[in-house]
Amino acid sequence: MNCEIISVGTELLLGEIVNLDAQTISQGLSEQGVNVYYHTVVGDNPERLKKALDIAKGRADIIITTGGLGPTADDLTKETIAAAFGKKLVMDPVQQKRLHERMGARMTPNNEKQAVLPEGCTVLENDWGTAPGCAFEAGGCRVIMLPGPPRECEPMFRERVLPYLESLHEGVIRSRYIKIFGMGESEMESRLSYLMDRLQNPTAAPYAKEGECLVRVTAKAPTEEQAYALCAPVVDEICSVLGDVVYGVDVQSLEQVVVEGLRQRGMTVALAESCTGGLIARRITDVPGASEVFGCGLVTYSNEMKMQLLGVSPETLAAHGAVSPETAVEMARGARRAGHADVGVGVTGIAGPGGGTAQKPVGLFYAAVSTPQGEQVVERVRRNATRERVRLYASSCALDLIRRTVLK
Amino acid sequence: MNCEIISVGTELLLGEIVNLDAQTISQGLSEQGVNVYYHTVVGDNPERLKKALDIAKGRADIIITTGGLGPTADDLTKETIAAAFGKKLVMDPVQQKRLHERMGARMTPNNEKQAVLPEGCTVLENDWGTAPGCAFEAGGCRVIMLPGPPRECEPMFRERVLPYLESLHEGVIRSRYIKIFGMGESEMESRLSYLMDRLQNPTAAPYAKEGECLVRVTAKAPTEEQAYALCAPVVDEICSVLGDVVYGVDVQSLEQVVVEGLRQRGMTVALAESCTGGLIARRITDVPGASEVFGCGLVTYSNEMKMQLLGVSPETLAAHGAVSPETAVEMARGARRAGHADVGVGVTGIAGPGGGTAQKPVGLFYAAVSTPQGEQVVERVRRNATRERVRLYASSCALDLIRRTVLK
Repeated sequence: MNCEIISVGTELLLGEIVNLDAQTISQGLSEQGVNVYYHTVVGDNPERLKKALDIAKGRADIIITTGGLGPTADDLTKETIAAAFGKKLVMDPVQQKRLHERMGARMTPNNEKQAVLPEGCTVLENDWGTAPGCAFEAGGCRVIMLPGPPRECEPMFRERVLPYLESLHEGVIRSRYIKIFGMGESEMESRLSYLMDRLQNPTAAPYAKEGECLVRVTAKAPTEEQAYALCAPVVDEICSVLGDVVYGVDVQSLEQVVVEGLRQRGMTVALAESCTGGLIARRITDVPGASEVFGCGLVTYSNEMKMQLLGVSPETLAAHGAVSPETAVEMARGARRAGHADVGVGVTGIAGPGGGTAQKPVGLFYAAVSTPQGEQVVERVRRNATRERVRLYASSCALDLIRRTVLK
Repeated sequence: MNCEIISVGTELLLGEIVNLDAQTISQGLSEQGVNVYYHTVVGDNPERLKKALDIAKGRADIIITTGGLGPTADDLTKETIAAAFGKKLVMDPVQQKRLHERMGARMTPNNEKQAVLPEGCTVLENDWGTAPGCAFEAGGCRVIMLPGPPRECEPMFRERVLPYLESLHEGVIRSRYIKIFGMGESEMESRLSYLMDRLQNPTAAPYAKEGECLVRVTAKAPTEEQAYALCAPVVDEICSVLGDVVYGVDVQSLEQVVVEGLRQRGMTVALAESCTGGLIARRITDVPGASEVFGCGLVTYSNEMKMQLLGVSPETLAAHGAVSPETAVEMARGARRAGHADVGVGVTGIAGPGGGTAQKPVGLFYAAVSTPQGEQVVERVRRNATRERVRLYASSCALDLIRRTVLK
């Protein structure tokens, strides 16, 4: 089965928004083993949408459209698709009632339009907005329409379209995700190639993003339980081959693993950040409920502030400089003290673009962890990277250092 | 003139990355008055790329492709396009020499392939990566090829393609950007509609994104100077109609305006953040050179830390709670003191998803500024928003408060 995604919206062609829907849907379909061969974007223009549909009909088994289901005069996806596939549009009384309940006094005659759907279609109820989606088969092609706003499209795809597609064939497809920090994609691939080459069900696919890697293990089986059972030994083997660069399986992020790990141990953390400028604090407090483990965060740029707020000694700064393992450790110690925390973290470095020297180039940083049991510091250099990437990588290294030392 | 963007890359169809290139190019072309009618995405598959090119040839005056110019066997865009347009590929000695200089010892025979270009094309030199782009005309269609990685595609488009397209017609198109915080898009549109409706050259277009708005004013004229001269009175009029919600013209961001304003005044700022969890510190220190104005940032969640690090009084916390205007002001004052800064900022609120009550709902926050001249606090509620959006909005409000009070 192969699929084409047609996104409808002039705002995409003006570059006002990026096509997030196409990415979300592609990712989900690829996990289901459905090939996506084309994405097409057209504006709110019935004639050009009609042409795009005619082309897609000839080359795809499934067409998924996003956008153009709203109440305004611009929203013409349903009308154009119905005409292209010879379908009649009829008022769906259930959806009409739902819309009235949802909108109450805000309901306008225009909104009624949203309850008009192709005759005999499968309605995909929208719990995240007003426009229902729908699916039907015609002329050997399966057509699925979804609303455009990503906050509606994403859950509609996950909660409505995936189960719908699963109901069309026997069995289910399930994936597990192994998350990795601290190993490059090519090294990871070469270590796993012996395994990936011989796998058929489940399969394993490596990905790299934002300085991290992940391996997706996907199995097909008659039931969900059986699919996960097929994945399990492969997930275990990959974790054991890669060792402690694996920071979690089916977890959201490094910061989530850190917050969860600290919470389980009843521990708190305090941060002293220089080059990362508050990014580690932001990442930790991005996790809902982080307040349980978060002591405090101190962002200090100047030597004066490092001395005053963190108690870094003037001798250390004079002898080794602000960007040094010694300063990182004293920052971590100072944060722990200031925040009455179990764990202190200190990060200092040169994020660029200015400020680098031959001895201490842009991209160099130190991350330290201090606990009552001891202290550790790591040195890393991220060369040829933007300020943003150096900062992101340094914040990940610090989070990973907490994981490797405290949460061992 | 109308354009189609064809993005080549299996990673797009797998949903591993989002199609940022198409957005960047669409935005730039729309500013130039070039209509984009279609985006197409195909994988690294010569046959399907050929089909997409045949379709595009029949409906577009300009085809811009992104991706597939790399050195690997997968990278087949040039070969496929040359064949589709009956062009011969030849080694370009200038680009070959450039590649050797750039890559040195890392040069492989595969890399040589990147210097092979369609005969007689305009070479678009790539200062941001190894693969040059190119442009040629054939069969009434203008074809432009760009590399796929956004960090190469974006500058190539701006520095190479836009001047190339300008050279094709008389005159230039120039835009100015008016940035707005603190007014909704619909209110802005209704205030400006009297003006926008009668404008022809320049034109003015409103946009909303991430809690901010912007108005783009675009003029076409024989020279750059004349284009800017046409824009000037309209920019002035819009600024005067909208008043002080305009935080800058042709500026990058609110944080950049704040850092620049503080620097010009030789002032420093210190932050006390609760619900924003380090986001304000991160945004300020995102601006290169922020160290000149950044005193320190303190991220305090608990009452204990607010008292200890910021000197918020136990009585204030007991009487008004941590989320109150009184606490915000004392936090701002404490930050100013701790950082020996000219300006102190305090933000406290409920980012959610938990922690809200009827009196103090999720989305409520207070932002305060403290200077030797006085103190100010604002209350805002961002209802029905995710944790991420509440935090982003609160950080913007705090930055905007600095601008409105200190940088007046």
